[in-house]
Amino acid sequence: MDITSQLIEALLQRGVRRVYGVPGDYVLGLFDRLERSPIDVICMAGEEGAGFAADAHARLRGLGVAVVTYGVGALKVLNPVAGAYAERSPLLVISGAPGLRESDEHTLLHHRIRASDTQERFFKEVCAQTACLDSGRTAVEKIQRVLEAMRRESRPGYLELPRDSLTRPVPRPLPSLTPPTLARVADLQRRAGLAVLEWMRSRERPVVLAGVELHRFGLQQALQAVLEREGWPFATSLSGKSLLSEQHPQYLGVYEGAMGERAVREVVEGSDGLLILGMPLSDLDTGVYTMELNAATCLRVEMDRGLRWSHGDQDTLDPVTLLQVWQEAAPPAAPAAYQPRVKPQPAEPFEPAADQPLTVRRLLLAVDAVLDDTTVVVADTGDATFASLALHLKEANDYLNSGNWASLGFALPAAVGAWGADPERRRPLVLVGDGALLMSAIELATLARYRIPALVVVLDNAGYGTERPMLDGPFNDVAPVDHVGLALAMGFQAARRVTREGELWETLRAFLRETAGPSLVSVQLDPQDASDALRNLTTALGKKVKAAELEG
Amino acid sequence: MDITSQLIEALLQRGVRRVYGVPGDYVLGLFDRLERSPIDVICMAGEEGAGFAADAHARLRGLGVAVVTYGVGALKVLNPVAGAYAERSPLLVISGAPGLRESDEHTLLHHRIRASDTQERFFKEVCAQTACLDSGRTAVEKIQRVLEAMRRESRPGYLELPRDSLTRPVPRPLPSLTPPTLARVADLQRRAGLAVLEWMRSRERPVVLAGVELHRFGLQQALQAVLEREGWPFATSLSGKSLLSEQHPQYLGVYEGAMGERAVREVVEGSDGLLILGMPLSDLDTGVYTMELNAATCLRVEMDRGLRWSHGDQDTLDPVTLLQVWQEAAPPAAPAAYQPRVKPQPAEPFEPAADQPLTVRRLLLAVDAVLDDTTVVVADTGDATFASLALHLKEANDYLNSGNWASLGFALPAAVGAWGADPERRRPLVLVGDGALLMSAIELATLARYRIPALVVVLDNAGYGTERPMLDGPFNDVAPVDHVGLALAMGFQAARRVTREGELWETLRAFLRETAGPSLVSVQLDPQDASDALRNLTTALGKKVKAAELEG
Repeated sequence: MDITSQLIEALLQRGVRRVYGVPGDYVLGLFDRLERSPIDVICMAGEEGAGFAADAHARLRGLGVAVVTYGVGALKVLNPVAGAYAERSPLLVISGAPGLRESDEHTLLHHRIRASDTQERFFKEVCAQTACLDSGRTAVEKIQRVLEAMRRESRPGYLELPRDSLTRPVPRPLPSLTPPTLARVADLQRRAGLAVLEWMRSRERPVVLAGVELHRFGLQQALQAVLEREGWPFATSLSGKSLLSEQHPQYLGVYEGAMGERAVREVVEGSDGLLILGMPLSDLDTGVYTMELNAATCLRVEMDRGLRWSHGDQDTLDPVTLLQVWQEAAPPAAPAAYQPRVKPQPAEPFEPAADQPLTVRRLLLAVDAVLDDTTVVVADTGDATFASLALHLKEANDYLNSGNWASLGFALPAAVGAWGADPERRRPLVLVGDGALLMSAIELATLARYRIPALVVVLDNAGYGTERPMLDGPFNDVAPVDHVGLALAMGFQAARRVTREGELWETLRAFLRETAGPSLVSVQLDPQDASDALRNLTTALGKKVKAAELEG
Repeated sequence: MDITSQLIEALLQRGVRRVYGVPGDYVLGLFDRLERSPIDVICMAGEEGAGFAADAHARLRGLGVAVVTYGVGALKVLNPVAGAYAERSPLLVISGAPGLRESDEHTLLHHRIRASDTQERFFKEVCAQTACLDSGRTAVEKIQRVLEAMRRESRPGYLELPRDSLTRPVPRPLPSLTPPTLARVADLQRRAGLAVLEWMRSRERPVVLAGVELHRFGLQQALQAVLEREGWPFATSLSGKSLLSEQHPQYLGVYEGAMGERAVREVVEGSDGLLILGMPLSDLDTGVYTMELNAATCLRVEMDRGLRWSHGDQDTLDPVTLLQVWQEAAPPAAPAAYQPRVKPQPAEPFEPAADQPLTVRRLLLAVDAVLDDTTVVVADTGDATFASLALHLKEANDYLNSGNWASLGFALPAAVGAWGADPERRRPLVLVGDGALLMSAIELATLARYRIPALVVVLDNAGYGTERPMLDGPFNDVAPVDHVGLALAMGFQAARRVTREGELWETLRAFLRETAGPSLVSVQLDPQDASDALRNLTTALGKKVKAAELEG
């Protein structure tokens, strides 16, 4: 019974059966112990990939783990961890470290960032909690503290494991895991929650705008139950897309301010009782602040921000408490009678025009038509995300993006984690631009190595398509790469470049029949083509870039 | 005359004609301005690559620059910047940032790490100096302060440029650059320096062990002049390899404690007057602390550590001051008479045995035989570095590695920077293992895009060869990748896989005749094969890994 066995036990207690990592000499001992445990280690091509894979796994399973070496490994997961902080994903980083004895004897060790605590201080900035497992006496308590803070805040955590601490004995074993109990709701909170409920019920056009926190705090079932009982229509944000099924009859679509569908905007902004629930007003979730809110008809309830309500300034209501109060409340006399005129367009059947060159809009229609209930769509940053807002996802949790952090290179490694979270059921469909594909291309080798049945759809417009409309120049060109040759070299069995609708349609359907490993289709698009959402967004963002030249 | 023009002018003053970067919306305006300046922008496939390229450029030219976007870009250069801190390389990061006005209005901006100053605080840990160019009034002074600290310490620097500050007017232009003057040598320092000189002259077996600081602080000519005047034999460290020509008649070889050549070790450790000059005693430079020193016969003089000498406890002598004092000192009556029995073996002519399978040792003999005075060898971490210690480099500065930081994936992007530092003369020869190649493979596209005449030699032993001897398991396997297909897909015109000496020899010579772009040769090695240096090293490091299992 040593530190390592208790660490592994703590992960197993929380349902972790698969972790993502890259070995290195400071962490080799832990890899060896994991190898001899019930936990599978997916060895990624690089540490950034391990981070994004663990982030995706965390979003789908409540905890994801990246295992890396000190310094050269740990610094490379800082980008995914900062992303997980922004996206509220409980991603645990376990970093190997020099042994305590080595550290005492010498200072200039390879992979050491300046001082022995520099690395942990970096992670403190982007984690709910961090700890160094440097003593058997305190290790179990530290492991529990980090994992509990991660659960409570739905944010990343960090554990450092000096390599001479792996086998330090632990005096008392990890207690068995007790399920978290709901926090007691204070009377004032209950009164405030009920008052918000009465207010919503009194509105003529009540609408809920549901954000990503509802997904991360496991509130989807509670939300759906309340929405169905009350009969309120709902929309989601870009980063919250697919938190409930997009086939739900009360679903309006993704709201994106002036960037998104006009019809959704009219219903949301035209509401006289708009509850913005679990959705911090970040730039990308609000269509770069083109959201038009009327303070008199809208309420915000989110995790780290108190709601001011007339019962008292001190009241704070977060989405967890509010939905708890609402679930316990008496049902309304009758569900809301409000029927917005706007309904989302159902997915259209795709009828390929065989020799027609491809466009982003038609590509997404084709993808929409091949989605089924095994697909999890993983969208990279850029038009792969904006265009994907038009997809009609079948079930909750069928969709992942880097909606707020917006890192290029998210999708390929996240697809590894989306598969790893549920390999029996999940089949990733990756939407990725050519710039992001190149940035993360090394993880094509991981998809092939583990025979992950992912379908990678490359939107190839020969450059950074999000940037061209803002300010163009040769710097927006991406190095020309033969995507088919690349995928085959990395071990894919199926890859094809398509330029026409007929080929695309045939390839998508053929590749989806293939389940023995990954496949890739590179879709050749006009460099000036873009989804409507991206066109709207880049007009707004381009103004900010140009303002830089004028405001100085 | 605005902040951007003064920033560009400051770079031009210091000889920067080429920078390395990846665009993003927060830094697009700067890319546009650079594009219209005399400075070329090399667009890398990813930001980590931009960092390593700028590091290599910095080592060869005294300043290298990486230009990245906020958050998602900046975090990805932290690994190369921490490396440049460890390797004492003056790498400047310029990061775009949200405009000051946007920051005032909103907090949840994409790419923002927690608070608005988090990013700069990360860089403070691994930089000589950082600054945010948020005001025209202070910008010039801040730019000078960062660049001057970088020069003084030979360490990285960081400038943050909010995107609405690019065109802020600057009241007074940047003054023209005055060449740095030598610091005045204090009398005590001079006396100490002369006393060390007398001590060395009085020894029977004087030896200088020259470290990487001599390279970074531009002391190579001064060192060579003194060595030749005094007639002392010298060795270098792993990270200082090739700081003087390895053809020099007084050169002994690379000293690596018990890891390196026995003959070199005997002369260095057998010296009765060993001056360890500009060489901090890091683990990898000392053969993982297998260096055996006798305090009575050895002196250390390095940058950040005072020398204690009998003239007084307060005396500090750094390599810059010491060599200045020595250059001004009167020459000896006669150069040292000491002739160590050991001489480095000259490069052997390579006689391929056509059908002989390849070994690391024979591969390096073949590479050694094709080096000429245009080659700069760039070695990745692992056996690519350890095996390369056997090469005989023609001139000073013909060699780059990640000797102390030891990051995998250094060499391919560093080759871009080594070329960019001197495209007329430099021709990179990259030595890289299959694990490191996969980790950095995206920069193959950059080598091809800019038609850089690099020769990439892959030591393919199907895994992390440095780790296998320490503790082996399936985690040390690297995903199988078709290196030839990969290089061709990335735009290489020439690539070949070789298994026999005949093919290798023919391919090396054919590819070196090709100068229109990069080429790659993937050398198939036995997974258990390794250089002698690596065998020695992994035996020592493996003991540390195993000690972890026992010490707890």
